[in-house]
Amino acid sequence: MLPVVLLSHRGPATFRRTRSGLTLKRGAGGLVTALMGLAEHLDDAVWVCAAASPADALIAFEHEGHSIEIGFSPELHVVEEDDTAVGPSVNVRYVEVDKHRHSQFYTQIANPLLWFVQHGLYGLANDPEFTADTHKAYEDGYVVVNEQFADAVVEEVERVGGRAVVMLQDYHFYLVGNSVRARCPDAIISHFVHIPWPGPDGWRVLPVQMRDGMLRGLLGCDVVAFHTRRSARNFLSCAQEMLDLSVDFQAMTVTVPTSRGGTRKVAARWYPISVDVESVEKLAASEEVAAHRQVIEQLHLNDGHRLIVRVDRTDPSKNIVRGFRAFGLMLDQHPDLRGQVTFLASLMPSRQDVPEYADYLAQVGAVVAEVNARHHGEGWQPIDIRLQEDLAFAVASYQLADVLVVNAVNDGMNLVAKEAVLANSRDGVLLLSENTGAHDELGDFALTVHPFDLQQQADAMYEALTMDRADRAKMLAAAADRVTKNDVGQWLRNQLSDLEGLID
Amino acid sequence: MLPVVLLSHRGPATFRRTRSGLTLKRGAGGLVTALMGLAEHLDDAVWVCAAASPADALIAFEHEGHSIEIGFSPELHVVEEDDTAVGPSVNVRYVEVDKHRHSQFYTQIANPLLWFVQHGLYGLANDPEFTADTHKAYEDGYVVVNEQFADAVVEEVERVGGRAVVMLQDYHFYLVGNSVRARCPDAIISHFVHIPWPGPDGWRVLPVQMRDGMLRGLLGCDVVAFHTRRSARNFLSCAQEMLDLSVDFQAMTVTVPTSRGGTRKVAARWYPISVDVESVEKLAASEEVAAHRQVIEQLHLNDGHRLIVRVDRTDPSKNIVRGFRAFGLMLDQHPDLRGQVTFLASLMPSRQDVPEYADYLAQVGAVVAEVNARHHGEGWQPIDIRLQEDLAFAVASYQLADVLVVNAVNDGMNLVAKEAVLANSRDGVLLLSENTGAHDELGDFALTVHPFDLQQQADAMYEALTMDRADRAKMLAAAADRVTKNDVGQWLRNQLSDLEGLID
Repeated sequence: MLPVVLLSHRGPATFRRTRSGLTLKRGAGGLVTALMGLAEHLDDAVWVCAAASPADALIAFEHEGHSIEIGFSPELHVVEEDDTAVGPSVNVRYVEVDKHRHSQFYTQIANPLLWFVQHGLYGLANDPEFTADTHKAYEDGYVVVNEQFADAVVEEVERVGGRAVVMLQDYHFYLVGNSVRARCPDAIISHFVHIPWPGPDGWRVLPVQMRDGMLRGLLGCDVVAFHTRRSARNFLSCAQEMLDLSVDFQAMTVTVPTSRGGTRKVAARWYPISVDVESVEKLAASEEVAAHRQVIEQLHLNDGHRLIVRVDRTDPSKNIVRGFRAFGLMLDQHPDLRGQVTFLASLMPSRQDVPEYADYLAQVGAVVAEVNARHHGEGWQPIDIRLQEDLAFAVASYQLADVLVVNAVNDGMNLVAKEAVLANSRDGVLLLSENTGAHDELGDFALTVHPFDLQQQADAMYEALTMDRADRAKMLAAAADRVTKNDVGQWLRNQLSDLEGLID
Repeated sequence: MLPVVLLSHRGPATFRRTRSGLTLKRGAGGLVTALMGLAEHLDDAVWVCAAASPADALIAFEHEGHSIEIGFSPELHVVEEDDTAVGPSVNVRYVEVDKHRHSQFYTQIANPLLWFVQHGLYGLANDPEFTADTHKAYEDGYVVVNEQFADAVVEEVERVGGRAVVMLQDYHFYLVGNSVRARCPDAIISHFVHIPWPGPDGWRVLPVQMRDGMLRGLLGCDVVAFHTRRSARNFLSCAQEMLDLSVDFQAMTVTVPTSRGGTRKVAARWYPISVDVESVEKLAASEEVAAHRQVIEQLHLNDGHRLIVRVDRTDPSKNIVRGFRAFGLMLDQHPDLRGQVTFLASLMPSRQDVPEYADYLAQVGAVVAEVNARHHGEGWQPIDIRLQEDLAFAVASYQLADVLVVNAVNDGMNLVAKEAVLANSRDGVLLLSENTGAHDELGDFALTVHPFDLQQQADAMYEALTMDRADRAKMLAAAADRVTKNDVGQWLRNQLSDLEGLID
């Protein structure tokens, strides 16, 4: 295997300046966890990421564009140059980005613009409205920051002699692939897009120079990877429709003209990401989770009461409002369930500096109040929301759920569904949106929900609550088995083995 | 050529009961005009349509399921059975639909639901929300009404011995094709979709039984036709993605299994609809138009003042609000143009019983007030809106436009653009949305606008107003030439010749 250069916006660890000096904290999020599995097991990997703190930036400055080896055991630490790492370690290259440019790149273009476009969230009658400021944020922010990261990636590739496997991650860096291709012709380049890739209709919402630029950026890679076949096909349709390129939907490739008058093929692939089964199981067995479990049981599970659970960021793509509305509808239509079932929702407030997100949180509060006012009685209120980020509490609720609701409008994968079926111990039923990546793997062992159809969601909740226990047990076991077999290690191995196949 | 059976929701003529007996009125709309050109020139054509008035329903009842021959010259009249029509005539078969079912079919499902889905107008974070009522409107309304029209079409096909060319029209009748196919195996069936056909992402908004039902309905045809290649490709993507059928994007066909275990091919085609050049020119030369022209000139064209024009229904898909906002932005950025240019907009209030449409009209009013308050001065107000349906006034404004704005969010074709370039006499510049069907033909002779990009629209308006006259004249002449060559007759001939090719 060639040396690997990874690029993602968030890195595996971030430095904090404290009174006792610099400390290191693990990066959060499913993607970082997944990539960590990769980086830890490769000797030659360099992970390029954004400096996420002033201390990261200082470290980057002190190392003059070189990476820093960070060891993971027994705890996070910097491996000094003359040391040899004991246990797994990863070389991290922090890139410091000017604060204003970073805000243009991240807070204006990547979120919410690309996020909204790729999740299909804009109501096109009124939104979006692009102004000179949007164009400026793209040119001075997204484009410039992408160039800056491309420079860092190119340096790392050149440091190992120009032949490396470059693995770019997500919607922050669509322009990097082509830039690296131009300067490192011998690199094998892949780009993994972790959020849905819509078809041409969806992309046409963006100004033409943005959407074509991003598409051409990705077409500089050898492989563009997604979580689902649906996204991979949409990507090819975009190349066909927006750039008039020749695509092959059988081989799943697009033919791209090269600057030298020839052509090269770019493959669209799909590899469903997953969770680290062992660490979910470890957390599930922890005392912290047990303590939460006891509290939830006392609150909501006396006398044969049942529990519907969801765990989500308060993102409009997660479809929280419709989920609660459907629950209210079910209580309207099945009054015998009143007082018998509670909807426990762990909701992490997200991106509250973005107006759409602040509005959405308010809507969530409104629908909860409305349903609880309509249906409460005798010490029971139908919906219990916790506006918190608490993984142990979330896992305790996964364990106790009779029904787990994942009704996302659109979702690249949705790891909540995968974690929940691993953790659950009550033969819980997964309600899974057809528009999640996870549905491709788990749809057969779940009740499919259609995210815009309140009645269908209400019916599915009722069906889940009244389903035969043996059927529920069988579905849950099959879902957990699927996740266990296709875990995050498998996700990485599949990608690496395909990339190895591209090495001459 | 085989006998032709046409189906569209609106018919070519409708009866009214007046004091002096029954009178006949021509059906309105571009599609009816276009189909009239077909029906008039075919001896054996029967046109099936909905009874649009109590008098139509009475006539339908009296004729016991038979068609009525309507002559067009010298004026609309019923051709009695023992008469021979002098001049063009068409056989009209009125179908009476129960009022409640019709409302479910038309006001709940076709508009706004299918209209919104196909124009991509829903903001999916909040809309739509399907309830039991939506499902009922589909099952009891759309499905039942489609069956009723399918029955009428089948009767007409059987009346001519089972071999006929069946030409189904638009989004009201997606289920008819398959139903006719099952009962008339020897018919050649085409279905023309006059509004945009989105890709699978867009269709997935609908409940699965609706979207799959509609797709399977269309796949009962031999040809499914659209105005653009883009829509035709999206249709194939839907068949591939939603029904897992095998498609060929080169041949533009999809392979459909038959009930007898074989397969048949369905072709996706595109034929851009157009206008009747002669009748546009005739109206343009009329005294009525001249009178409007004089008034507009006096009001808005003194002292070298210039005129920006738009003509639209007040439909969110038309993007009226963003157009005015872009105009306001242009005045902000080019204060020299204040007092020099007026935006004259003929806006026909549309579907005001649908809340989204009532809201949109209010938004239009709000932005006009806002821009006019910000920029008015010395007897000049920047935007002059006329909430009216007046074709003669519209044509007068086409003639006088320095700039014609068509910035639709999405539009199957947009005949305003085609009429305007024929009528204009001031070397006017067409601003044309990339998301209109008309852009495929006229994009090279227009300034392309991106409907969500206010700054780009403002720039395009400014460019149009400052463009060299010779360049403007050349673009306009080329656009008018294209429309003249590819007129509505051509649209019909292309379709009929392709359909004839399918006859054994």
